[in-house]
Amino acid sequence: MIPTLKDVKEAVKRVKPYVHHTPVLTSTTINGMLNASVFFKCENFQRMGAFKFRGAINAILQLSDDERARGVITHSSGNFAQALALAARSLETKAYIVMPSDAPAVKRKAVAGYGAHIIECAPGLKNRESTMLSQQKKTGASFIHPSNNINVILGNSTAVMEMASEVETMDVVIAPVGGGGLISGTALATNHLSYYIETIGAEPFGADDAFLSLKTGKIQASINPKTIADGLKTQLGDLNFPIIQKFVSKIIRVEESEIIESMKFIWERMKIVIEPSSAVAVAALFRNSSEFKNRRIGVILSGGNVDVSKLPF
Amino acid sequence: MIPTLKDVKEAVKRVKPYVHHTPVLTSTTINGMLNASVFFKCENFQRMGAFKFRGAINAILQLSDDERARGVITHSSGNFAQALALAARSLETKAYIVMPSDAPAVKRKAVAGYGAHIIECAPGLKNRESTMLSQQKKTGASFIHPSNNINVILGNSTAVMEMASEVETMDVVIAPVGGGGLISGTALATNHLSYYIETIGAEPFGADDAFLSLKTGKIQASINPKTIADGLKTQLGDLNFPIIQKFVSKIIRVEESEIIESMKFIWERMKIVIEPSSAVAVAALFRNSSEFKNRRIGVILSGGNVDVSKLPF
Repeated sequence: MIPTLKDVKEAVKRVKPYVHHTPVLTSTTINGMLNASVFFKCENFQRMGAFKFRGAINAILQLSDDERARGVITHSSGNFAQALALAARSLETKAYIVMPSDAPAVKRKAVAGYGAHIIECAPGLKNRESTMLSQQKKTGASFIHPSNNINVILGNSTAVMEMASEVETMDVVIAPVGGGGLISGTALATNHLSYYIETIGAEPFGADDAFLSLKTGKIQASINPKTIADGLKTQLGDLNFPIIQKFVSKIIRVEESEIIESMKFIWERMKIVIEPSSAVAVAALFRNSSEFKNRRIGVILSGGNVDVSKLPF
Repeated sequence: MIPTLKDVKEAVKRVKPYVHHTPVLTSTTINGMLNASVFFKCENFQRMGAFKFRGAINAILQLSDDERARGVITHSSGNFAQALALAARSLETKAYIVMPSDAPAVKRKAVAGYGAHIIECAPGLKNRESTMLSQQKKTGASFIHPSNNINVILGNSTAVMEMASEVETMDVVIAPVGGGGLISGTALATNHLSYYIETIGAEPFGADDAFLSLKTGKIQASINPKTIADGLKTQLGDLNFPIIQKFVSKIIRVEESEIIESMKFIWERMKIVIEPSSAVAVAALFRNSSEFKNRRIGVILSGGNVDVSKLPF
């Protein structure tokens, strides 16, 4: 059931013509502060501004010609809506995006700008799912789950694979945990690359369902999550949870103030715009700095989609 | 009097071990909007966050051993203070920085953090100059002017030289104009590279002394400049003005609202932090977009030092 190194390598080859090979940046200041070597994989520079494009394009590329002709569908109010819309357009496939009526206008506009067909529904997961199912019935479109889909997970794994091809060795890789699509893809790839690379998840205290899931051994719902990292409010899925259980060594939880400070720090010092979800991984690095001393750490900056006129600092 | 291509090439070689070779970024969105190919030279990723480091390090490297032993001195409350402080530290040279008492605490702290000796003076150019002169007399330090110094100009010219080594051809290069150190270095280099590369300056309407200087044929003082681009408030000097007159084809002036919108646009779309002075060059590109259609344009993003908790949007 768990994909092999061959599967990961094939995904790398498959998505290569479509994704940006994003840069790996370093900061003398941060290395000096932590007495460590930190490598930031800048998925904020990925197409549509987040790693999600990798999973979306890989999933569409794995459909048959017949399936592609009928299009793809998902429900999301976040980055995956844009990712699937852009990936579909790149492959001349129709995309149907179910979005709740309270989704920010700027996100609707971005999705529409990529030429996707938006289906509005009432807020709430149940409404999203039922609207999606009825639209799927009508169109025969393939449902692509934002994080609990093996081809999405494999697509996401290509970010750390790119990083590993440039950075000589890494002892640890840190990635944020939301629905589990990025952390599972990352852990899968690093484990296949070397048993000795540790993969650590980062999660807000206000949305620590993955931490609790690992602790209890079963998927915990994300109930009333409260965090500025809106990309991390979703819960794990049955396809990515076993991978996370097997390959993720632990999850570091961080406070909201640490997320905001880390975001500000990266903007001011590294001159790059990262979204709060990315800052969660940076905050985990800073919070547990003593354990990272003298190590080589990869940090996945998952995205950079922020409304800069609404900042927490 | 005007430096040759050989001088420029020697500066490139001289500063190479000390400067960051900054990336050149492109944006599919911007190229699509303008129907042009735009190449952004990211000096916001330069050491201390601005191109100024190039001029500072080149100027110190051109001093004799005796001069270096006595140190360097400048008066600045902006990026050049940090640039000279960091360059001096990199070369184990003493730096004396005359700063007005009303300089922002964050800037003082940054300069002190690089190990420079700060000499406080009352605000105003006259006070800065007299304090500098008396300190220079005491220490024998070499005065390095932030923009009106041939070795600073040559150091600054290395940014566009790096860009030209990566970008196959360019028809135009746009750079912001403050004291004239960047635009003169850029124009000098592009003219030597090819007679056919046009160099255009960008200036706020609220600080258009360079525009007026070119129009009248003599250096105009910058009287009560009013712009968010605080790096562009200074006036041209007798060493850079002749270079600008000879090699800069024109200066495009932009409104404050255009500067702010361009800054926000680059942050949100390109996910990089640029300061208002850099946004002035982007605003010039957008304002005169029709003349740039179908051309290959280099834009120098001069720096990224911004207090992100005090934004105009």
